[in-house]
Amino acid sequence: VTHSPRILVGQSGGPTAVINASLAGVISTAYDVGAQVFGMANGIQGLLANHLVDLNAFTPQNLELLKHTPASYLGSCRYKLPDLTEEGPGEKNQAYEAIFEVLARQKVDAVCYIGGNDSMDTIAKLGRWGAQVGSPIRFVGVPKTIDNDLVATDHTPGYGSAAKYIATTVHELALDSSVYDLPNVLVVEIMGRDAGWLAAASALARTTTPSHASSAPDIILLPEAPIQEETLIERVKELLCQKHCVVIAASEGARRPDGSLFLEGSKRVADSAADSVLATDAFGHATALSGCGRALAALFAQTLNIKTRAVELNTSQRAASHLVSATDLREAEAMGVCAIKAALQGKTRVVPTMERVSNHPYQVTYNLTDIEEVANKVKFVPTEWIAPDGMDVCPEFIRYARPLILGESWPAYVDGIPATL
Amino acid sequence: VTHSPRILVGQSGGPTAVINASLAGVISTAYDVGAQVFGMANGIQGLLANHLVDLNAFTPQNLELLKHTPASYLGSCRYKLPDLTEEGPGEKNQAYEAIFEVLARQKVDAVCYIGGNDSMDTIAKLGRWGAQVGSPIRFVGVPKTIDNDLVATDHTPGYGSAAKYIATTVHELALDSSVYDLPNVLVVEIMGRDAGWLAAASALARTTTPSHASSAPDIILLPEAPIQEETLIERVKELLCQKHCVVIAASEGARRPDGSLFLEGSKRVADSAADSVLATDAFGHATALSGCGRALAALFAQTLNIKTRAVELNTSQRAASHLVSATDLREAEAMGVCAIKAALQGKTRVVPTMERVSNHPYQVTYNLTDIEEVANKVKFVPTEWIAPDGMDVCPEFIRYARPLILGESWPAYVDGIPATL
Repeated sequence: VTHSPRILVGQSGGPTAVINASLAGVISTAYDVGAQVFGMANGIQGLLANHLVDLNAFTPQNLELLKHTPASYLGSCRYKLPDLTEEGPGEKNQAYEAIFEVLARQKVDAVCYIGGNDSMDTIAKLGRWGAQVGSPIRFVGVPKTIDNDLVATDHTPGYGSAAKYIATTVHELALDSSVYDLPNVLVVEIMGRDAGWLAAASALARTTTPSHASSAPDIILLPEAPIQEETLIERVKELLCQKHCVVIAASEGARRPDGSLFLEGSKRVADSAADSVLATDAFGHATALSGCGRALAALFAQTLNIKTRAVELNTSQRAASHLVSATDLREAEAMGVCAIKAALQGKTRVVPTMERVSNHPYQVTYNLTDIEEVANKVKFVPTEWIAPDGMDVCPEFIRYARPLILGESWPAYVDGIPATL
Repeated sequence: VTHSPRILVGQSGGPTAVINASLAGVISTAYDVGAQVFGMANGIQGLLANHLVDLNAFTPQNLELLKHTPASYLGSCRYKLPDLTEEGPGEKNQAYEAIFEVLARQKVDAVCYIGGNDSMDTIAKLGRWGAQVGSPIRFVGVPKTIDNDLVATDHTPGYGSAAKYIATTVHELALDSSVYDLPNVLVVEIMGRDAGWLAAASALARTTTPSHASSAPDIILLPEAPIQEETLIERVKELLCQKHCVVIAASEGARRPDGSLFLEGSKRVADSAADSVLATDAFGHATALSGCGRALAALFAQTLNIKTRAVELNTSQRAASHLVSATDLREAEAMGVCAIKAALQGKTRVVPTMERVSNHPYQVTYNLTDIEEVANKVKFVPTEWIAPDGMDVCPEFIRYARPLILGESWPAYVDGIPATL
């Protein structure tokens, strides 16, 4: 390109605590190379509606604020592009034609799309369409997801901060639950429908300092390791002989060997839209699986006749920018930088990924991966990282996850709360 | 006393994020004056069982760790002493005799009891009994409660940190809820059965910086301001014409004008012990009122046919030591120091209280108040601090509460999570 390159950036799917650090990485690199940078309001939806945002006027201070601002700064969407027909332009492909019309009108040279699994599907489809119609526009993904379920990358930006929030909160809740000298069970419900990476991160709450050891959580339940209710009850009984407070960290998607979710065992208020429901989103994924924690707490209350408490960790898991992992924040920004640099070098249909070089010292390299290798695939917690009894993770997982939560990066505080953009 | 004074300290009731800072204040002052200091394990219950803990060997580093450790370090209880009979010693007063026997055997000179409303009742009763039997032992309370519902003090240690956690979290959740371009209502359920101080603190989430203004929460519901469902629905409708995301902060004890709680309007799973139940504790207070958020979210989903989400802020409200208010931490420690100093000066049946001298600069003085003036009374959010429509707080409340959340005091982090004792 001979003119100043024009970069369009969007965000899609659920936010992470550091999703805006990737955006900041794209913006600051655009400034560095003299590119023009625009944002899609609400992802691909805003692109379809030609609703773009000028991002060329951030001060360095505002870019810092942006990095510590939770929620997708540009807005998000869960819009699913129609499947591509092989025949090329046609009525079925109206959305693609509309999008490429906007891109042409805006003279866009490259599109960076920050998102998870489904967003990689979106950018892959746009790239395929572009190739079919011979468009010179480059399409680059920027991975983010607290779920850590993307393949081809050691881990995903957003996961480390969610894991740090979960470990910190489970540690605090476990201490809180043990203050009364009464047998009790605390069930902490953690996000994760199909992959248990987030619930597994609760294992990082355990402290090993000899004088201040805390073994909580005592049980970790992952979707990858279905378990019989009877086995679970026996294990809790056993633990209650050793300690008065048993802490269980359970994925929202924790399930029985027959595949049924624990939350399905609880009676639910059928007519209450706010209660646990098995809804599906535009991508056909189950959403709003909350209820597993309450179902399990009710199970233990009924079968063991003891005090139980269910705590559902809420959307703070993806929004607690006040407690980001400095490692995660740095990597999220670096992934944004890698993506726009790749686009500026003429690369398309790729996504930056991380490869771990070493744990001591922790070190990653940034590579580029064909986006088709990443889209629509899910990475689960490997079986060899799950304890044989299916109720815990192995030291291998701890060695993998610990470096990702290291380091703190405090936001500025104004009037007693974190400053955001 | 000619021997080295012997101080016994206990903690009772629900923890706060800074309850151990008061304990640290007692311990360090005891060290300063050469007093011996012991703790009751699980409050008055441990005292009855002669289960005491030696607190004489803290290193300065461990005292610092203690200040940032959530949950009651000594354990807690909800034991209610029997009502005092006027006739003096007798069968009914077995508990008092047992307690004073332990105190005599341990040669205790003074008892400091860190707790809320009910704990002040306990210390008041022990003081009365001591006076009746002519005991020289001094009894001093140390106020703490996230509920901020103690009379005779401007505010209560523990409230500022809970308020800071609530304001920060509501701010983050509100940003997260606005990322999709769809009409939606977020209901955040906040602790507070009878007094709305904690839900009111959500008003501190609003940001006034012109470029980054956030008006969330849009509605605040307090137990002190009952409201008709119809009025609430109309207000939400109105707000949805102005913005796509409406955020409501609701006390768990939010109610209708007939006194019924919103949570009672939701169908509940009667046989599920983990679900919303109206249980009562040893003091006859309703406990476990969770469910108001889900009930309101269901109400809006049904009547307005829109997406709603209920988030119940969990026990992190009292346990999030990773996000304490530096002001609160300092005051909690100072209250512990005041209490033990009063006891060493021979004062009994008193409790340190705070009086606000000025807001600019924020300044308090520490006084001593007769414990009988504090026990068994409840301080509500004053009517003049609640908006006339009953759905918000007034600027007077903000002026009162803002200084209490100011300042940050980060704990040390080890292995990526806060170090605790």
